[in-house]
Amino acid sequence: MTDLLAAYPVIYETDVAWGEMDAFQHVNNIIYFRYFESARLHYFQQTPLLAEMEVTGVGPILHSIHCRYRFPLTFPDRVRVGVRVTEMAEDRITVHHRAVSARHNRIAAEGEGVVVMFDYRRNHKAALSPTLRAAIQRLEAVVSGQ
Amino acid sequence: MTDLLAAYPVIYETDVAWGEMDAFQHVNNIIYFRYFESARLHYFQQTPLLAEMEVTGVGPILHSIHCRYRFPLTFPDRVRVGVRVTEMAEDRITVHHRAVSARHNRIAAEGEGVVVMFDYRRNHKAALSPTLRAAIQRLEAVVSGQ
Amino acid sequence: MTDLLAAYPVIYETDVAWGEMDAFQHVNNIIYFRYFESARLHYFQQTPLLAEMEVTGVGPILHSIHCRYRFPLTFPDRVRVGVRVTEMAEDRITVHHRAVSARHNRIAAEGEGVVVMFDYRRNHKAALSPTLRAAIQRLEAVVSGQ
Amino acid sequence: MTDLLAAYPVIYETDVAWGEMDAFQHVNNIIYFRYFESARLHYFQQTPLLAEMEVTGVGPILHSIHCRYRFPLTFPDRVRVGVRVTEMAEDRITVHHRAVSARHNRIAAEGEGVVVMFDYRRNHKAALSPTLRAAIQRLEAVVSGQ
Repeated sequence: MTDLLAAYPVIYETDVAWGEMDAFQHVNNIIYFRYFESARLHYFQQTPLLAEMEVTGVGPILHSIHCRYRFPLTFPDRVRVGVRVTEMAEDRITVHHRAVSARHNRIAAEGEGVVVMFDYRRNHKAALSPTLRAAIQRLEAVVSGQ
Repeated sequence: MTDLLAAYPVIYETDVAWGEMDAFQHVNNIIYFRYFESARLHYFQQTPLLAEMEVTGVGPILHSIHCRYRFPLTFPDRVRVGVRVTEMAEDRITVHHRAVSARHNRIAAEGEGVVVMFDYRRNHKAALSPTLRAAIQRLEAVVSGQ
Repeated sequence: MTDLLAAYPVIYETDVAWGEMDAFQHVNNIIYFRYFESARLHYFQQTPLLAEMEVTGVGPILHSIHCRYRFPLTFPDRVRVGVRVTEMAEDRITVHHRAVSARHNRIAAEGEGVVVMFDYRRNHKAALSPTLRAAIQRLEAVVSGQ
Repeated sequence: MTDLLAAYPVIYETDVAWGEMDAFQHVNNIIYFRYFESARLHYFQQTPLLAEMEVTGVGPILHSIHCRYRFPLTFPDRVRVGVRVTEMAEDRITVHHRAVSARHNRIAAEGEGVVVMFDYRRNHKAALSPTLRAAIQRLEAVVSGQ
């Protein structure tokens, strides 16, 4: 069995809820973005991002996001979402998400989002802190074997 | 055509969204509570409650809520939700909601919630302010013809 | 540490999603009904209910449901929901749900729903099948120690 | 006041629900995809797509979707979503969505989705029917002034 998430340093898992299916009897398209969001938060919890936000007021804001649906999820199933940061700029990161159906061992969806650092107190963009940047580099290094 | 909402001083309306239906092809049971919540907010917007909250930190917290499903909503439809306050105590109000299918002119669901006033800064229950109490009485008087 | 769910034969667990919190920074009131629904489905999966439905077209429909909020859930947390059937009639069951915050070991919410058996093909209520009734009795007996 | 939706043949409107805001006190990122979905359905209702689906079993499936967030929506507001088809291929259409805050007369978000026609009975892609294609052309012609 191939590990479809081998390239992802952080993996978030959740059960598909029956009520997440829509009238076409597949998990509704917007729910994948909830899975992606929960997986991003799970990644962020392994960095100082959320703790820093409480002190500095600088936190993430979603700039844009995309999803390519590949295989429709249905209940019952367990979805495993891999997350990795594929790019870091001064004030933003690009995050890749891959959602895998545990029952079928197939990629259900993939998507990329751009997260901008935002100073919620001063209402403008902000730079990634050096500690956040280092934490992301450490997480990603584990996977790339550096 | 009987007016199923004649007894309600405030009516909130929204279209049923296709994505609110679940795999049984009816609007999912939790969505009715979203309709009720939106309708309560619409009621509160016609009182000083939300403006007072910004100043005093005293706002509503939901203590309990109930829903009796009568007729399953489906897309496309428009739901009209009547709201009225049926009881006011020192620190809480009882709110009745009735959701009506506009397409079928039938009661889709009814439910009652208890909303407690809560001082979010001091973390304990609070009394309804006299201005809030008076505003609710005025709204309800219109319907009861007083 | 008291086991707040000792009386429940079936326990469903899920992580609180960040996006389930609302502007008051607590898990939104309607989400508790999603937790209850997922927990009921988890209970039903341990009975022949869903398999029977595919053959006979007789499945569950929610008649009414209630929730009493006790302690506000926030992210991050894990919610454990106990489910038990407290009453069985000819064509309906009463289901009790208790949601517990794993982080705080406190009851977050409790609620009771009435689920009616419904013949989706003939469009009327139906009786619980003897096999379903027996399966529920077996599940409940484990807890009551019979 | 510029009409930000002048280029869109179909416009869907809905009120922002209070409960659609998340802990950052903005409408949560996944909700924009619900607005887009409801707006697409509203567009489809002005074509024979949904009626054809009941007869032929050929209906829409979402292949991919994107959203670029521009201005955060908050409650209370009314969102107006313009929809237009920007491309039609043999078996798919590209749909552009623009969500506008009515309160601020600003673009809140824009996004593009690819919808594939899918034969749900035979489980493979299908061509757009000539009547559907003609209906879309008629809708789009109104705006482009052809």
